[in-house]
Order: sequence, then structure tokens, then C-alpha cells
Amino acid sequence: MPELFTVVTPDEALKRLLSHLNAAIESENVKTNMALARVTSEEVIAESALPSFPRSTMDGYAVIAHDTYGASEGLPAYLNVVGEIPMGRSSDLKLKRGQVAKVHTGGMVIEGADAVVMVENTQQVDAKTIEVVRPVAPGENVIQIGDDVKTGEVFLTAGHWLRPQDIGGLMGLGITRLWVSRRPRVVIISTGDEVAAPEDKLTPGKIRDINTYTITCLALQAGAVPLSLGIIPDDYGALKAAAERGLEMGDIVVISAGSSVSTRDMTADVISSLGEPGVLVHGVSIKPGKPTILAVVDGKPVIGLPGNPVSAMVLFDHIVVPAIFRLMGCDKPPRRQSTQARLGHNVASIPGREDYVQVKLEERDGETWAIPVFGESNLIATLVKADGMAMIPLDKSGINQGDYVTVRLF
Amino acid sequence: MPELFTVVTPDEALKRLLSHLNAAIESENVKTNMALARVTSEEVIAESALPSFPRSTMDGYAVIAHDTYGASEGLPAYLNVVGEIPMGRSSDLKLKRGQVAKVHTGGMVIEGADAVVMVENTQQVDAKTIEVVRPVAPGENVIQIGDDVKTGEVFLTAGHWLRPQDIGGLMGLGITRLWVSRRPRVVIISTGDEVAAPEDKLTPGKIRDINTYTITCLALQAGAVPLSLGIIPDDYGALKAAAERGLEMGDIVVISAGSSVSTRDMTADVISSLGEPGVLVHGVSIKPGKPTILAVVDGKPVIGLPGNPVSAMVLFDHIVVPAIFRLMGCDKPPRRQSTQARLGHNVASIPGREDYVQVKLEERDGETWAIPVFGESNLIATLVKADGMAMIPLDKSGINQGDYVTVRLF
Repeated sequence: MPELFTVVTPDEALKRLLSHLNAAIESENVKTNMALARVTSEEVIAESALPSFPRSTMDGYAVIAHDTYGASEGLPAYLNVVGEIPMGRSSDLKLKRGQVAKVHTGGMVIEGADAVVMVENTQQVDAKTIEVVRPVAPGENVIQIGDDVKTGEVFLTAGHWLRPQDIGGLMGLGITRLWVSRRPRVVIISTGDEVAAPEDKLTPGKIRDINTYTITCLALQAGAVPLSLGIIPDDYGALKAAAERGLEMGDIVVISAGSSVSTRDMTADVISSLGEPGVLVHGVSIKPGKPTILAVVDGKPVIGLPGNPVSAMVLFDHIVVPAIFRLMGCDKPPRRQSTQARLGHNVASIPGREDYVQVKLEERDGETWAIPVFGESNLIATLVKADGMAMIPLDKSGINQGDYVTVRLF
Repeated sequence: MPELFTVVTPDEALKRLLSHLNAAIESENVKTNMALARVTSEEVIAESALPSFPRSTMDGYAVIAHDTYGASEGLPAYLNVVGEIPMGRSSDLKLKRGQVAKVHTGGMVIEGADAVVMVENTQQVDAKTIEVVRPVAPGENVIQIGDDVKTGEVFLTAGHWLRPQDIGGLMGLGITRLWVSRRPRVVIISTGDEVAAPEDKLTPGKIRDINTYTITCLALQAGAVPLSLGIIPDDYGALKAAAERGLEMGDIVVISAGSSVSTRDMTADVISSLGEPGVLVHGVSIKPGKPTILAVVDGKPVIGLPGNPVSAMVLFDHIVVPAIFRLMGCDKPPRRQSTQARLGHNVASIPGREDYVQVKLEERDGETWAIPVFGESNLIATLVKADGMAMIPLDKSGINQGDYVTVRLF
């Protein structure tokens, strides 16, 4: 049975899939210091201010700004040192006009004081007296209460992907636990009578499973929990049973199809039979990766990926990763790692198709060049030799040597 | 005591540090499917070929190429179908002149056959006969044994950072375990009498620890094992004891200094006292992050980071991450995630200093703009609001609005 594709663009394919994924996944309460790369499932409100006291940003003297007005090298202000503010503690000291107190960076600006004079703009006269040679304005060199974060402020919105500084900031606010979306479970099914488990002795005609492991790693990188159902033979009933089990266990089911057209057709038939709304897209205008199937069954994506490793990677990146983030409620996933580079050879393409070419990056005269690694798209060695994939946009008939391309880095 | 800096450039600082880190860390044998983002500690040789049999890249017929020579629409070659090659198995079939066998993509090209004719270039005449309307050359539509990976070939070099496709390829070669460098242990010490644990009730004058958690996450992202020794008071003996314990436990010691100059000086004194060769750099021409200390003690880096969160992030990224990869024996660490963008405002700098400005990214008319998020460098909120840091190179006195900058993404 020949495949009847109504091919759609990669963006359209993703749009159709995401339009069916509106229900948020459950959330769970976790320790903040274990929440790196998780996604907040609700707004995080600051319950306290940062800083919680006026802090000096300089080493110097806490002063009453008015006392320094008009001070200069020629006509310094002479002020009375009444003590030193300890780090990490409040102080009973309270400034009156004409008085200053020694303060360290990060120390409290005590009652009465409204600014800090840098130590560089002072001169010690005696144990109790300094000269100030430059005036300060009220608030100068002071971080006021809440200047960093105000009490009651939205510190993080819902759907925020947590980075190192977010974790640090939450801890800085004393928020040691928070609600995040559960990690979506991505169930991975490999099909193909020719596919064997890597641990097993290879018999003639078999190849070892590659895609289960590549996809597992890609799912991990995206913050999902990968679950493999192993290798399913080219049998409609067996594949359907596995897919149904996947839908029960997981939030997304990814089927890595066998290489033959008949297996791909069977995979399509199985996906079509699983439930509503069913197949949304069969065929994406992308190379490699055209024979991709996007379906949704009871709110869960079921993605049929082509069997060759490169196609599987390209499509996982384009379709499955955004679906994972959508399920976690993240509207602003981390940007894909990419770079601009000049293309090392002419590369032909077909308008109306997005092409991905595996490239190695080389630095030449301070510029980054993307040198295509030519090879069949179903060879793993080209993927291992490559640093990334150069993208030839949908509307181009090719890219000339020396032109700039965007390279999605591995 | 004022600090006496002999400031060096960020590149020179890193070079000095790495020149002392030549001993490789120990290696360990791990399961390949658990080795994502680890670094190979020795070459990986392919012990078998990929594919291990000649594979068809098309659905069609295995043929003897010679039998198709001269075939055309007008004058097809009539060939005798002797059977179908099963997927995933060898076949007893053996072609003689004039014979073909049906084959699927990924199926074995059997003995006697030397090419595959695509099904599209054939016509079924009867159950036993096809017409071939286009000739094929020997080897056409066939991946030969070892075309992907040859037996005995170096599949991965030592010091290779393992990506999803590398894991897939290793499994495809039946390499289910491999040797990787142990994850370096990064010991994190926070100092400062003003720093409190996030779990504790905050007393006046204290701020909660941010850097321990930010640095822990950055170390995790780089593939290291973070170990926190907690918050050490501003006491020479206590800090020295902690640093010595860190050197025993860890491969890298990172001290996040308190904010005051006196604490920073004490941190410098402690680092100087730990052993040989000791302090290599005290002061880096980078903003924020100048008061950074780089030392090596008995082959282990000891890094004194400034206390404010932004400086700590910038310097960790520049200095500690490359050191982690060097210890793992990785000469080609994953590229930093960065993007080109147009700067949203004029930003002044000083020639001879690398400046980092926190920016938000915005798309405007198909271009990415980097809009500076202004704020004190010791505010965590600016880091949380920012998408990355725009870099103003060492030799520039600033960058004009609309000029292109490289943004290191968080």
C-alpha cells in the first residue's frame, strides 16, 4: 500500500498538535534545591522583601546625607565616628546629626542614617573623626528594603522553567519548597522485525536498537521521564497492545517505526485505531523526517517517528520537545542551542521543505564555518561526527557556500 | 587593608589555571544507557561493523545489476522473482542471473545480488515476473557492511562528551558499558557573617544564602557533583579548616566570599595559606566579577568567587566550568548556549575589561533584540528577569544601540 501523504509544514504540524494539548499535567510539591529544570505550576509570590533591611553597597560610613552637602577636598565635612556596624547583625547605634558609623558592604544602614560615603572619599583624622571630601545624596550607596524583591511581588510566573539563579533567588527568599509540574512520562516503543536489543547476540539480518536510546536521552534532556516498552515485532496486534499500554502508562507515546514501508503503514494503522481525535498529521515537509505521524488520543500525543536515527532526532526536537514543555505548562521553554555559521559547501534543497544537514563546526579566521558531513540519513556515524544540523529554510532552493545558516547544536 | 590587584584578562586567567590541571581524574565503568553527558576516558573502538550485512535502503528488488543494464520504459528487462527476503533474518535465497528477490528497506541484500531496484522502477507482469524500466549500478541502494562503522574503527575518541546520538550509536554497536571519567566533585563553601541558611528564621542584618544554591545548580549543569559545606563564619581558622576539608573531599573548591572587603581579604589570605603553587590570579578584568581569586593547591583548583550572585555566575561559567571539563579530560566541551542579538540601548564599557550586561530577549520584526535589564549587580531579581548576558568585548569602549552582541543564554 503506497503512502498517501498530505504533507504539512513543520510549524503547522506542531501547531495542530499543540492545539489539542491544553490540559495541564498534575503538579507536585518539591524541595526548591531539587527543582532545577522543573517548571513552576503556579505563581511564586515573595512573602518577604529582599533585602529585608537597608544594606550598604560599599565599604565606608553610614551618614546623614545632609551632613555631607557642600563637602569637597578643599572644604571637607568633619564628622564624628560613633561606632562600627557589625556584619550580620542589627545595631543599637542610631545616628544623630554630625555622626557617622563605619559600615561594610552588605552591612545594615542603621537608624538615622540615609546614605553611605565610600571609604575612598574619606580621610581618618583621629580615632573619633573623619573628613568627608565628597557629598552623597540620600539613598546613595544603599539598597533599600525591597529594592531587589518586594513583599507580595510575583517573583516567578506559573510555567517558568527553573534555572540556577531562580533556585538561588527562591532560597534567598526563604522559599525552600514549591509546586512544579510533574515530569511528563514519554513512553518509547521501537518496532521492526529487524531490530534487536543491544545486549543480545546479533543474528544475521538484525540490527541493534539505536532509537530507543537516542530518544530516551532526548527525553531526559527535555526534562521528561523516559519509559521504554522495548522492541515490538511487526505485528498489528502486538503493536496495538503496546501502544495502548503506553497510553495508560505515559503522557506521550513515541513509536519509532521500522524501516520498511509496510511496517510504517502498519504503525500508521495502529495509531489511527487508538481513539479520538486520532491522526492530525501524516507527513511533514522536513528532510529527513517526512514520514512522521502526529496523533492525539484522549489528550495524549502519539507520535510515529521514522525509523532512521537522524529523522528521529530531527522530529523529536521539533515536535516532541515542545509537546513536553506544553504539558508542563511552559510557554517559554529554554531556547534551543544554536549558532550562526557560514556554510562550507553549496547545499541544494527544495522550496516548501525544511532541510537539515549534519555539519561539523570549524573556526577559520575568527569565523565559524559549518562543514556538511555527507552521508545517508540512516547512518549513525554521521550524527556522531557532526556538531549540529544546519537548517535550510522552507522557502529556499538551497544555500550557497559562504552564506550564513543557523546551526542547531547537539 | 586595601586590595592590591594585578588584574589579568579572563582568557589569561583561565589559561593560567588550566596549565596546572593536567592530571586526569580517575575513570569508572558505567552502563552506556546511563552515560549521557559523561566524558569518555578512553577511545571506544567498534568491535563489530555497522551494518553487519548488506542492507537495502529502498523497498524493491534485490538484483544482479548487470541484468538491468540498458533497461528502459521502452525496452524493460524481464526478471524472474524467486522469492521475498524476510526482515530481520537471513535467507537461503541466492540469486542467479535473471533472478530477483523482493526486499524491504533495511532488509538483507542476499548472496548473488549486488544492487536494489526501487519498486517505483518496476512493474509486476505476473506472480513470478517483473519488468525493470531503469538500470542500477552495482551497489546502488545498498549500504554495504561497515559503510556506517567499520570493525576496528575509532568510534569515539577519549575525552568525548556523550550526546544522545553517541549513546544510541554505542548501543547500536553492542557496546553496553564503557569507561568514563568520574564526575568531578565541586565543594562549595559560603562565607560571610551576614549569610544565613534559607531554612532558618532570618534575624535582622542577615541575608539568606543564594550562591550555594546557584553554584550547586551550575555545577550540576556542567556534569559535576556539588557538595556544600554550608556557611562558614568570617573567621580565619574556621574558613581555613573548611577549605582544607574541601580539598580532601573534592576535586575543586569554590569559596563564595562574603560581600565586605575585609571578608574578601580574609578569604584571599586563607587561599594563599593552603599550599603550593597557591594563588595564580587575584583579580580578573571582567565586570561584574573582578575580585576573583584563582589558585591551585596540589593539583586542585581553589576558586574564590565574589559574593554577589551575578559575579558568581559569570565567573563560574568562565573559570569553573572549563576546569570541570579539563578534569574530565574533555578538550571539546559542549558549546555554550548563546545567540546573536541587537542591543536595545547604548551600553558603555571600559577598554581592557570584558563587561556582562543582563538582558531580556525580544523578537522585533524577525530579529532578536537584547534589552538590558538595569540593576545593581548584586540583585538576584535582575538575574531572574534576564534571559542571558550580553558580552562587551575586552577591546571595546561600549556598544551602540542596534549593534550586534553575543548573548550567553541562561
